[in-house]
Amino acid sequence: MVLLSDLATEIVIPACAVVGIVFSLVQWVLVSRVKLAPEAPAHNNNGNKNGYNDYLIEEEEGLNDHNVVVKCAEIQSAISEGEYVGVFMVAFAILIFLFLGSVEGFSTKPQPCTYNPEQLCKPRLATAVFSTVSFLLGAITSVLSGFLGMKIATYANARTTLEARKGVGKAFIVAFRSGAVMGFLLAANGLLVLYIVINLFKLYYGDDWEGLFEAITGYGLGGSSMALFGRVGGGIYTKAADVGADLVGKVERNIPEDDPRNPAVIADNVGDNVGDIAGMGSDLFGSYAESSCAALVVASISSFGINHEFTSMCYPLLVSSMGILVCLITTLFATDFFEIKAVKEIEPALKKQLIISTVIMTVGVAIVSWVALPSSFTIFNFGTQKVVKNWQLFLCVCVGLWAGLIIGFVTEYYTSNTYSPVQDVADSCRTGAATNVIFGLALGYKSVIIPIFAIAVSIYVSFSFAAMYGIAVAALGMLSTIATGLAIDAYGPISDNAGGIAEMAGMSHRIRERTDALDAAGNTTAAIGKGFAIGSAALVSLALFGAFVSRAGISSVDVLSPKVFIGLIVGAMLPYWFSAMTMKSVGSAALKMVEEVRRQFNTIPGLMEGTAKPDYATCVKISTDASIKEMIPPGALVMLTPLIVGIFFGIETLSGVLAGALVSGVQIAISASNTGGAWDNAKKYIEAGASEHARTLGPKGSEPHKAAVIGDTIGDPLKDTSGPSLNILIKLMAVESLVFAPFFATHGGLLFKI
Amino acid sequence: MVLLSDLATEIVIPACAVVGIVFSLVQWVLVSRVKLAPEAPAHNNNGNKNGYNDYLIEEEEGLNDHNVVVKCAEIQSAISEGEYVGVFMVAFAILIFLFLGSVEGFSTKPQPCTYNPEQLCKPRLATAVFSTVSFLLGAITSVLSGFLGMKIATYANARTTLEARKGVGKAFIVAFRSGAVMGFLLAANGLLVLYIVINLFKLYYGDDWEGLFEAITGYGLGGSSMALFGRVGGGIYTKAADVGADLVGKVERNIPEDDPRNPAVIADNVGDNVGDIAGMGSDLFGSYAESSCAALVVASISSFGINHEFTSMCYPLLVSSMGILVCLITTLFATDFFEIKAVKEIEPALKKQLIISTVIMTVGVAIVSWVALPSSFTIFNFGTQKVVKNWQLFLCVCVGLWAGLIIGFVTEYYTSNTYSPVQDVADSCRTGAATNVIFGLALGYKSVIIPIFAIAVSIYVSFSFAAMYGIAVAALGMLSTIATGLAIDAYGPISDNAGGIAEMAGMSHRIRERTDALDAAGNTTAAIGKGFAIGSAALVSLALFGAFVSRAGISSVDVLSPKVFIGLIVGAMLPYWFSAMTMKSVGSAALKMVEEVRRQFNTIPGLMEGTAKPDYATCVKISTDASIKEMIPPGALVMLTPLIVGIFFGIETLSGVLAGALVSGVQIAISASNTGGAWDNAKKYIEAGASEHARTLGPKGSEPHKAAVIGDTIGDPLKDTSGPSLNILIKLMAVESLVFAPFFATHGGLLFKI
Repeated sequence: MVLLSDLATEIVIPACAVVGIVFSLVQWVLVSRVKLAPEAPAHNNNGNKNGYNDYLIEEEEGLNDHNVVVKCAEIQSAISEGEYVGVFMVAFAILIFLFLGSVEGFSTKPQPCTYNPEQLCKPRLATAVFSTVSFLLGAITSVLSGFLGMKIATYANARTTLEARKGVGKAFIVAFRSGAVMGFLLAANGLLVLYIVINLFKLYYGDDWEGLFEAITGYGLGGSSMALFGRVGGGIYTKAADVGADLVGKVERNIPEDDPRNPAVIADNVGDNVGDIAGMGSDLFGSYAESSCAALVVASISSFGINHEFTSMCYPLLVSSMGILVCLITTLFATDFFEIKAVKEIEPALKKQLIISTVIMTVGVAIVSWVALPSSFTIFNFGTQKVVKNWQLFLCVCVGLWAGLIIGFVTEYYTSNTYSPVQDVADSCRTGAATNVIFGLALGYKSVIIPIFAIAVSIYVSFSFAAMYGIAVAALGMLSTIATGLAIDAYGPISDNAGGIAEMAGMSHRIRERTDALDAAGNTTAAIGKGFAIGSAALVSLALFGAFVSRAGISSVDVLSPKVFIGLIVGAMLPYWFSAMTMKSVGSAALKMVEEVRRQFNTIPGLMEGTAKPDYATCVKISTDASIKEMIPPGALVMLTPLIVGIFFGIETLSGVLAGALVSGVQIAISASNTGGAWDNAKKYIEAGASEHARTLGPKGSEPHKAAVIGDTIGDPLKDTSGPSLNILIKLMAVESLVFAPFFATHGGLLFKI
Repeated sequence: MVLLSDLATEIVIPACAVVGIVFSLVQWVLVSRVKLAPEAPAHNNNGNKNGYNDYLIEEEEGLNDHNVVVKCAEIQSAISEGEYVGVFMVAFAILIFLFLGSVEGFSTKPQPCTYNPEQLCKPRLATAVFSTVSFLLGAITSVLSGFLGMKIATYANARTTLEARKGVGKAFIVAFRSGAVMGFLLAANGLLVLYIVINLFKLYYGDDWEGLFEAITGYGLGGSSMALFGRVGGGIYTKAADVGADLVGKVERNIPEDDPRNPAVIADNVGDNVGDIAGMGSDLFGSYAESSCAALVVASISSFGINHEFTSMCYPLLVSSMGILVCLITTLFATDFFEIKAVKEIEPALKKQLIISTVIMTVGVAIVSWVALPSSFTIFNFGTQKVVKNWQLFLCVCVGLWAGLIIGFVTEYYTSNTYSPVQDVADSCRTGAATNVIFGLALGYKSVIIPIFAIAVSIYVSFSFAAMYGIAVAALGMLSTIATGLAIDAYGPISDNAGGIAEMAGMSHRIRERTDALDAAGNTTAAIGKGFAIGSAALVSLALFGAFVSRAGISSVDVLSPKVFIGLIVGAMLPYWFSAMTMKSVGSAALKMVEEVRRQFNTIPGLMEGTAKPDYATCVKISTDASIKEMIPPGALVMLTPLIVGIFFGIETLSGVLAGALVSGVQIAISASNTGGAWDNAKKYIEAGASEHARTLGPKGSEPHKAAVIGDTIGDPLKDTSGPSLNILIKLMAVESLVFAPFFATHGGLLFKI
């Protein structure tokens, strides 16, 4: 019936995952060829195609200056100290484990299956136990993904700086390869762990696929709850340090960004790794795990599950496997097939990555749909079974894939300083910070329009073809090129830190210019990455929402019912509440940082002159403490809302809350991250002075530049704390509701029962 | 069956309206006693209780200085020139008239009634004709309300300034009385015109109340569409001038706010009247007209309409009539029963107005519900009739009324500089504009929480008791104290302009301090007024949405249907699109204004020295042109969206769009206006230096003050353009959908039909 045999499926999926892991290790080895230790010369990679023949190679001043290399190593080891956030995350995982385990832990006897009452399924207790196990595995995989990302990022920072001395092309390749390590490790790990979990659980569950894949949903919850703390905590960490460092350093003391005399500079660099790399990694991993789980849950009660067609059941995993192979080929285009020779080629090269991966993946999806799906099958659709053709499911995946590309391009248009929107924002700095902020906010609002239409079209098309399963695979389609997406995303903070290290190591102006150029492209790719994360989060949340509604046993969510409507309006308010908390947290933590930095400048003699060393550790501690303390209230808001609403107001109101939070949160998330990205690049546009127009606004220190710096600082918490955390808000509330759905359906709505 | 006879109802409603109009004329006469012409002495109101005995009266410097009085008269006549915006509005009314008339103009034969097919109702053509007539009347009444408001406001500005020389209490009374003129004229006019229209239409419709009240909905559409242009156009007008004046005057030239040397200062003062007074007036008038219409439409197909119980049918109008009487008594508390003796008494006095009116109105509503309603009746509820008791309807009105008070208080808490939120924002100015903006945005987001819960509770309670009729009367309850609400709201811009005139007329520092104190309270009341406007808009929109769904003949709006969901997510995006347009418009117009002001400073010799007069007219023209040109795209977005969605995607998607825009727009509207109000008052807090803390941040010109000025400027378009316009967006789309519902139900959804 299906071209791909079950045995082949069992081999293909882990094989692709292993290929991804091997590829990422190869990239790591290539990056590690750049030696930091002073004894080895830094240009020992002449055998490599990228090691010579470079357009900007003529200027290698300081290449053999041992002091520079030593300083890079020192700074890097300082950065690595801040990485113990993961320990805290594991502690929280245990808390959730206990909470989840106690909710459904009552029945030990087999019971009739929900969707096929004639058969006997495994007891509820088994679902509870296995849900918790998969939750833990999801959480651990998420933390691991974030941790590995941070490791490779900190590993790559100084190496990128050193390569920047040889030219912008070499630096680009190191930064990009490091991003690729992160991307492939994460995509392949996520797939492999999920695959192993399914196979292990099958040993117990046997033919009870309904129970099996219900238990698997815990994997998504685990991934996402860790992502919440990564994003929120990491966001507060990095931006408290960044804002604090800028306010005293750039504004009061008039020293450059990333100057080593600034005591908050290490905390800032650590933060870039914690927030941007680990946060983004666990966020996208969460989306990936959740969309896979949502698709599997729906499939398990559709014809695939009912007839036990293993290959078709694994369609979501096969799409992801294909994604790894496609991204592998795509990466070679950036690192081996073409070369970056000038600054202006960086952004097009990254953009090409998106296009290439999407085009090849379209073919890939067609192949997978052809070999792994029967020509016609049925999908569960709120109580009925809907007939779907294989080409329709192919279109569902593609519509998500291409919507992702569109969102990426729109984001690039609104946040890159090569286009008019950011240039307009930069121009508005002429009249001061106020007009800069007004134009920046307007830009963010405007940037929402096309992505929302893209998401709406994806939803309509994929739902029409294959109901909630269609939406889940559309989300998977958007995430199928996750490895490339993460590579270009992680590239951003790596370049940012490379620039910081160049500044701190006292490297020449020209090297700093190159890292700045890499960083400017990085801001755009970071915004693109956030766009992907938000777009996929919207689709994933909707798929999870659909799964929740199915599992809770309601067949419609009527806006005209007051129970639903009040949920809708309160749900739409939650992202504001959440953003208020996170922004205030960044603001307060930044004020504390400012006080500490001021104190050090005032009390440490010789600090401004560069003769004394600042106390970096205290600043790192302030950021760490703030992030741990301040992530509790927003975390509690997200984790407790579904529980409180479900228990006291019931599943109808909870449905309203989920829908409201989804449609409102998506907008704020997109606008916040694009506004922030645009401000950052408007500032970089003025600093770089690459065009006639830009030079009339600059140079650094001019009034327009000062106005641009204010915008950049405001954008920091928007784009790196509150904006991206909102993805998690909408996803996590949905997946939590899904996991607890049976509980709410039987015991929820206490308040209305009175 | 009902205590109040139909004849008594016919007398009571117009009588209350006339009382309101007479009262407002009395207030006008009292204000007019302050003479501007130099020949009459300015303190000829000694016979009035408020004319002497004033705590701060000792300092009357310049009272008989003829030059000051002449300058006030001159400036006032300059301000009046900018008021021709109304002409444009009438032109647009004709356009809508033609459009509306052509849609349903086909059937001339009587047809079976929708909800009682055994009876014959008037032809569709009659509904079309009468809808257009009532639309025009609504539009004219709206424009008239705005125009009268502007007239009295400009009339009062200079008089407030002159009275400020005698003391803060006198100035307060003049400003408040003028606000009351506006409030009562508008409330009474709205009621009277609606009452007359109903009675005139009844001559034709006779017993066909269903058709009669369907035609009346045009009144709401007329009111709201004019309000859109008042709010958007006025908002762009005023803020282009304000931002432009501040950027060159305060920032570049370092001259005070409202300095007469600034060429944009007249445009700024004109703008305060156009945007804040006329805009707010037509906005609240629109809400009032729409909630009355929504209530009447639902009542006409409930037992009141079916049994032709005229008194009960007029319950919404009777509540409004009672509101006028209650507000009349409330006003006396501010103007006659108590006196303001010191600056710190201003805010409590305004707050007391809210409390007094709400408490008395609760009794008033009880009386109306007792005399005008049968003890039990039925209300139409999406296809069924629901039994409602009179006390339940009383509770519906009260829940709206008290929710309004709560929203008012929360708004006051978040925007008044006597509480910690604004003081925290002011404090964050220590570290510059960036932290100010971050804290301000967080404050706005946070201020959304309680109002949304208040609205949610109102919706739940009123819907549970009396379905959509309950929500409509809850909205009416919130708006029943509209006269007081408008009085305290209009008081704000009047005080603002009084301060401007004092500055321009070169009055002493102490007088400016007094007008500043009045103005600071005015910023808070303006925010409270906006809170009311938004809260009532949310309820009104929901009521209209319910009426639309009923009229379109669908009985549920299921979020799980993809047609609805894509509507929901796109609808939630519209407020962002709209805000992007309006904010960009303000930004661009402000940049033009900046260029013109700079040009004048550079080319007119002696301008900075005060020996030459600036060219005020050009700046007024820039604001006028910008407002007329820039209001088209956002206006088109709002007016065309329901038409396009209805025609191409059908009523289900349109329902989603309305619900999405409602739940998302309310949040942005509240947060934007509170953020802006808070920034404005944080600046005033630093300037006033009334506490130890405030003095550490000031004085004017200090670094924290400069940061506060930037926040204030950013807040201008948020709080006076995009924020308040969003009310209209959600209301207008709903009422437009309601009016066109029959058309969409028969011909809509072209795209899905293919």
